[in-house]
Amino acid sequence: MTALPQENSRYLRVQRMLDSGAMHQASKLLNALAPAEIAHLMESLPITEREIVWGLIGDQDGEVLVLLSDEVSSELIRKMDTDELLAAAENLDLDDLADLVQELPETITQEVIESLDQQRRESLEDVLSYPEDTAGGLMNTDMVLIRPEVTLDAALRFLRRLGDRMPADTDALIVVNRNAQYLGMLPLSRLVTGNLSEIVAEVMSLDVMSFHTDKPAREVANSFELHDLVSAPVVDDAGKVVGRITIDDVVDVIREEGEHQFMGQAGLSEDVDMFAPVMVSAKRRALWLGVNLITSFLASWVIGQFQGTIEKIVALAVLMPIVANMGGIAGTQTMTLAIRGIALRQLSSSNMRSLMLKELAVGLINSFIWAIVVAVIAGIWFEDINIAWLIAAAMTINLISAAISGALIPILLDRFGVDPALAGGVFLTTVTDIVGFLAFLGLATIFLL
Amino acid sequence: MTALPQENSRYLRVQRMLDSGAMHQASKLLNALAPAEIAHLMESLPITEREIVWGLIGDQDGEVLVLLSDEVSSELIRKMDTDELLAAAENLDLDDLADLVQELPETITQEVIESLDQQRRESLEDVLSYPEDTAGGLMNTDMVLIRPEVTLDAALRFLRRLGDRMPADTDALIVVNRNAQYLGMLPLSRLVTGNLSEIVAEVMSLDVMSFHTDKPAREVANSFELHDLVSAPVVDDAGKVVGRITIDDVVDVIREEGEHQFMGQAGLSEDVDMFAPVMVSAKRRALWLGVNLITSFLASWVIGQFQGTIEKIVALAVLMPIVANMGGIAGTQTMTLAIRGIALRQLSSSNMRSLMLKELAVGLINSFIWAIVVAVIAGIWFEDINIAWLIAAAMTINLISAAISGALIPILLDRFGVDPALAGGVFLTTVTDIVGFLAFLGLATIFLL
Repeated sequence: MTALPQENSRYLRVQRMLDSGAMHQASKLLNALAPAEIAHLMESLPITEREIVWGLIGDQDGEVLVLLSDEVSSELIRKMDTDELLAAAENLDLDDLADLVQELPETITQEVIESLDQQRRESLEDVLSYPEDTAGGLMNTDMVLIRPEVTLDAALRFLRRLGDRMPADTDALIVVNRNAQYLGMLPLSRLVTGNLSEIVAEVMSLDVMSFHTDKPAREVANSFELHDLVSAPVVDDAGKVVGRITIDDVVDVIREEGEHQFMGQAGLSEDVDMFAPVMVSAKRRALWLGVNLITSFLASWVIGQFQGTIEKIVALAVLMPIVANMGGIAGTQTMTLAIRGIALRQLSSSNMRSLMLKELAVGLINSFIWAIVVAVIAGIWFEDINIAWLIAAAMTINLISAAISGALIPILLDRFGVDPALAGGVFLTTVTDIVGFLAFLGLATIFLL
Repeated sequence: MTALPQENSRYLRVQRMLDSGAMHQASKLLNALAPAEIAHLMESLPITEREIVWGLIGDQDGEVLVLLSDEVSSELIRKMDTDELLAAAENLDLDDLADLVQELPETITQEVIESLDQQRRESLEDVLSYPEDTAGGLMNTDMVLIRPEVTLDAALRFLRRLGDRMPADTDALIVVNRNAQYLGMLPLSRLVTGNLSEIVAEVMSLDVMSFHTDKPAREVANSFELHDLVSAPVVDDAGKVVGRITIDDVVDVIREEGEHQFMGQAGLSEDVDMFAPVMVSAKRRALWLGVNLITSFLASWVIGQFQGTIEKIVALAVLMPIVANMGGIAGTQTMTLAIRGIALRQLSSSNMRSLMLKELAVGLINSFIWAIVVAVIAGIWFEDINIAWLIAAAMTINLISAAISGALIPILLDRFGVDPALAGGVFLTTVTDIVGFLAFLGLATIFLL
């Protein structure tokens, strides 16, 4: 087994303390952790223990709430009363507050907003006006703006006067004109190495792009990756700087995107809580099982059309899952490539045809190889040459159809605005099951009876 | 269809230029792109076009090679001669050079190393001595060290003398004692806002942890996420700072980890090239199909044991895929949660039992619901009450076994050092297929014949 990482052993200690009832010690250990560590720990705890830990957390509770996955935090919020929620909201930064407010019940949101001073209230309403999955929703409004005609010496003196009020994660100042429109970035690394008498305009970087508030979060993340950005300005329609996106929020987007693809294939959202209440999980799973049951019944209905054939040649019933399964496996490989290509914006209508031709060629080669292998095994097993060529033909048909549908289904789903990571598998299995059973049993009915 | 992002439309333009033979224009457009953009574009091109684009790239070729996924770059490297490779390696930073060198053929690696001056050669050999997926393999050695007793004023003067030689992505200076052992970080944001007469020791941050060179890259990434780090020092056994990890390299680790989970389920590596040569793809896929074929034949063998039963009650053959499929779907949901939990270090032996109990409860509820639904439909379809209770019983057995094996298989695989994202699906399907067919056909043989 891989060695337990530091974090994990700390969790073990917390868990042992909970088990043994050493609450005071557990509380001390917990409150020495960073909010993100507490959130990570809580997500890994079963519900009862999670609630005990939650009760032990001091005034970090607001930050922890924001960092928990949506499903976990909403469950906790449901059980908190208004006073507790107001207290949790009190110490939060504006962007964290905006995240939290979106999860609160309507009535409490109003109370929270009313408890703020005028300026903070207006800023919060600004941030709340952008959808969560856009540049506007990702940004925070704490930032330092500077004018291009200032000398580096003056800039440094300005920052020293600012002192602690400069946001801690500032890696660059945003250079704007008198209308607050974006001109460039002045990385602190250039500020501290440049000549004191130079002006900002001479030293600033023009390479950092700005993002419009409407830009989808996923594209912002792609740009951060491609250009190794640490922070970037967000602008409105007029090019005016309204906020700043930092890499830590982008990292969350990238992590969620990866989990979304992986978990979507099992019909799960990336927010899903591993220890969600049994009834909540059961309901969610039931839905997904129901959707897939329709696929299964469709396949069964196809088999049902050939009952007479199966009665006469029972070997068909024995072998038919092989034809369907191999199609499903081959199709999933093609589909996985296509879904990743779509997510990375590397697959579009312009190169779709090339992908399909390549996948078709791969499918042909593999159907050839495996049709022979399966035919030989099946032929020997049932001592029947007819079964051998029959399964070879059916497998060839199904692997080719799997290659085509594996490439086509995600592209079509994406075009119609359906998430291929979520729905692709259901559609693909329907095709490979139906084509597999139909080809195998259909050919048998035509040629062997 | 979602609107094409900026990048994508640029690719379309390049592609159209290639199609129309407007090579000069294509070359101009290409060389105006950042290396990462060229790499991203090349990955989305079919092989022939990719090679044309590769021929048009100027002296950015070294950087592009490093940024391409391993499979794409190794294919290009294979076709380059020694002089081209030496030229590509010439302008690279040390950490990029280390990445490239690991992909070169042995003989050329020697030539590249010999072409370096003494100091660069020693540094390169240092970096090459760490495995790629550790903190040592992630770090670069360009960094600025500072002593704790220096005043901020002196530090700023030191940096101005350093000028352009300071690494561009420096967000913090690393504070070390006279033995070069790590003491703390001095973020530039504190340096520029602090009082000039203060000394570094008073202002430095003690919150940033250092990573040992052996620390797995995946755990480094988790820590960066939990603590919102932008850069962190890497230390050797003696606590001496030997390098620095920056967030851009961590982002790549996070992206790869997500793709690994997603693509692993289809037996694909995250490095896989969407437009790999047909024979390369076919070989890789053949292997995966072969592994899965064994699973399929095992299931078929189980069915084969009940040929007599199927001959008498052909409805069994029609309905048996439903029992197996529903088990597979339910088990995959549990397994997906478990794999994510393991990857995030939120699932371990300490909370495994809680997960299994919860999944078992969810499985029981869902087997109850869907067993009734399926029984009613099957009973009406075949006008047979025996078929109805039979399929209900088999589904219950299979959904419960799916819940248990969905939780247990990834944990066991991980414990034995096998990657659950890659192998989990094969094992799970084997269980759900065999248990499904065995329960359904076995019960039928005992009670219906």
